[in-house]
Amino acid sequence: MNKAKDKISFDGMICPLPINLSSVISMAHGGGGRMTQQLIEKIFKPAFDNADLETQHDGAVLDVPFDKLAFTTDSYIVNPLIFPGGNIGSLAVNGTVNDLAMCGARPLYLSAGIIIEEGLPMETLWAVVQAMKQSADIAGVNIVTGDTKVVDKGKGDGIFINTSGVGKIEHDLTIHPKQIQPGDAILLSGDIGRHGIAIMAAREGLGFESQIKSDCAEVSNLVQKMISANIKIHCMRDLTRGGLATALIEIAQASGMSLNINENEIVVREDVKGACEILGLDPMYVANEGRFVTIVKADHAKKALKIMEDDSSESQAKIIGGAQEAPKEKVILSTRLGTTRILDMLSGDQLPRIC
Amino acid sequence: MNKAKDKISFDGMICPLPINLSSVISMAHGGGGRMTQQLIEKIFKPAFDNADLETQHDGAVLDVPFDKLAFTTDSYIVNPLIFPGGNIGSLAVNGTVNDLAMCGARPLYLSAGIIIEEGLPMETLWAVVQAMKQSADIAGVNIVTGDTKVVDKGKGDGIFINTSGVGKIEHDLTIHPKQIQPGDAILLSGDIGRHGIAIMAAREGLGFESQIKSDCAEVSNLVQKMISANIKIHCMRDLTRGGLATALIEIAQASGMSLNINENEIVVREDVKGACEILGLDPMYVANEGRFVTIVKADHAKKALKIMEDDSSESQAKIIGGAQEAPKEKVILSTRLGTTRILDMLSGDQLPRIC
Repeated sequence: MNKAKDKISFDGMICPLPINLSSVISMAHGGGGRMTQQLIEKIFKPAFDNADLETQHDGAVLDVPFDKLAFTTDSYIVNPLIFPGGNIGSLAVNGTVNDLAMCGARPLYLSAGIIIEEGLPMETLWAVVQAMKQSADIAGVNIVTGDTKVVDKGKGDGIFINTSGVGKIEHDLTIHPKQIQPGDAILLSGDIGRHGIAIMAAREGLGFESQIKSDCAEVSNLVQKMISANIKIHCMRDLTRGGLATALIEIAQASGMSLNINENEIVVREDVKGACEILGLDPMYVANEGRFVTIVKADHAKKALKIMEDDSSESQAKIIGGAQEAPKEKVILSTRLGTTRILDMLSGDQLPRIC
Repeated sequence: MNKAKDKISFDGMICPLPINLSSVISMAHGGGGRMTQQLIEKIFKPAFDNADLETQHDGAVLDVPFDKLAFTTDSYIVNPLIFPGGNIGSLAVNGTVNDLAMCGARPLYLSAGIIIEEGLPMETLWAVVQAMKQSADIAGVNIVTGDTKVVDKGKGDGIFINTSGVGKIEHDLTIHPKQIQPGDAILLSGDIGRHGIAIMAAREGLGFESQIKSDCAEVSNLVQKMISANIKIHCMRDLTRGGLATALIEIAQASGMSLNINENEIVVREDVKGACEILGLDPMYVANEGRFVTIVKADHAKKALKIMEDDSSESQAKIIGGAQEAPKEKVILSTRLGTTRILDMLSGDQLPRIC
């Protein structure tokens, strides 16, 4: 069915097809034998090439001293695999890089555990791997160890990727909800709701007037700048599943604090707002993949905001509110209409498989 | 369909059902909202309870200094999920613990990324998580960070688990195929072929006269004993996909050495041998999950063997051969019949989804 190809394209690059196996993934690519080895040699090794990458051993040995390290994991099951603004590969790298950044760590090393469904076009795998490489380069991390498994057709869904990450903590800040003090300022790094809407539109084949692209990106370089500038960061959280509302509710519960936010300061682009209305979604609960909240000492808020604004003029970072002692464990939204409401955890599923 | 239950059993334990949600996993358990939180609180947190476990943050911060660390990842997609001698949970912990051990590291921390298919009985998830806990305790590792995703029915296969591991290297040995010297001895830690046959028998519903149990187990405690005894270990490899033959071929290729092994010294239990004959499999290529080869300085071989034998009288460790300079990159088997043959990498798939 698949015509043999000798060229392959990704993000404007046209390259010779690096692998002349069959044009789709077969069970034997996951068998641990010759075809697994070819996949590693032709697809993974050229992309992830770095001094620490260990493809002939069971793991990577990293000769870097750590005093304190951060360790995190995430599996990515997004549907569709490719969406406006990224694909599952960029998502898998940025998501885990951002989790390390949220711990206050400098992301250094990633692992990649890839589960492929039999029949996946080789070209799709290649594009995903290229996106992983590109995102890793931007974030300054090396993918040092990996694993590939193949499941029978109908027992997976294209590709699932797990990335785990190791980062180095090079400062004395303790970044944790429990560090939040009454009076602290809450900052949001940019506009919200784009990733979830981009996925939803791609999945349902909705053609909005302007194509809404995912905000999928690393935030680690920005966080490192804030740490270097000695901003007293008390807490950080990236806004993924469940969006801004869920992130803040989790922080409120873990800290015991009341978090008060102002709807006027929360930027939602007009096209995203329109799409949310059509789809019946609340942008406060829609997923993002390149946005975070940080809660900092009140008198550091303006300096922190300036760093965020200098990092990207497009993202529209804002101080959106502050922490108070009571009512405990609640997130209170002051709406545009001048009313207030307590934000609640979603009990069901708003947008499944967005990351 | 599923009758409500109030008791649940695992490995002889009967416990009150820890979660009174629905009796199967739903998409909402992966949505990042209230039901995800309940799953974490009721199933994961009680099992993985340890001081470093971070369930309210994006990753774990580990305040342990490292000079040199090992980092590894593996995804587990075994079918069936539960088999004689273990389940996907014990496999996922032991497999990654063993990969760290093969790097010469003391396994310390694991992550768990779990992808669940909608409709999985809650009881199955619970049994898998209990097995993870039990295996982690035996190996002396803590599961410190995790992630749960749910995919639609028909887009997964029960449970897939990724575990990544961080270990500490506390010695000056360089353990790598390139360290192998001519004259080195090759040791095998026990009998081979049981895991692959146990999976195959469970999958195909084959009833062999005696039930063959998987060898699924951690080998890290044994490796630590060898390192503590100053055995000059040049290389180690656990025998998973592709079995003993594939592991040795990979080592021969990575080292450039010739590895000569003696079939008479390779233990295959009679029931495993019989099953292999019925199934048309070569035990040299059948997967193991609790066995490894190690290549050591020749005059350390007997001491190493003694440590292996003292560790387990049942496993039947043996010195199975040695390394030579030529013919380069080949594994040569001296058969029981007195002939020799060069072992070749499997080109296809012998036993899919055994790990």
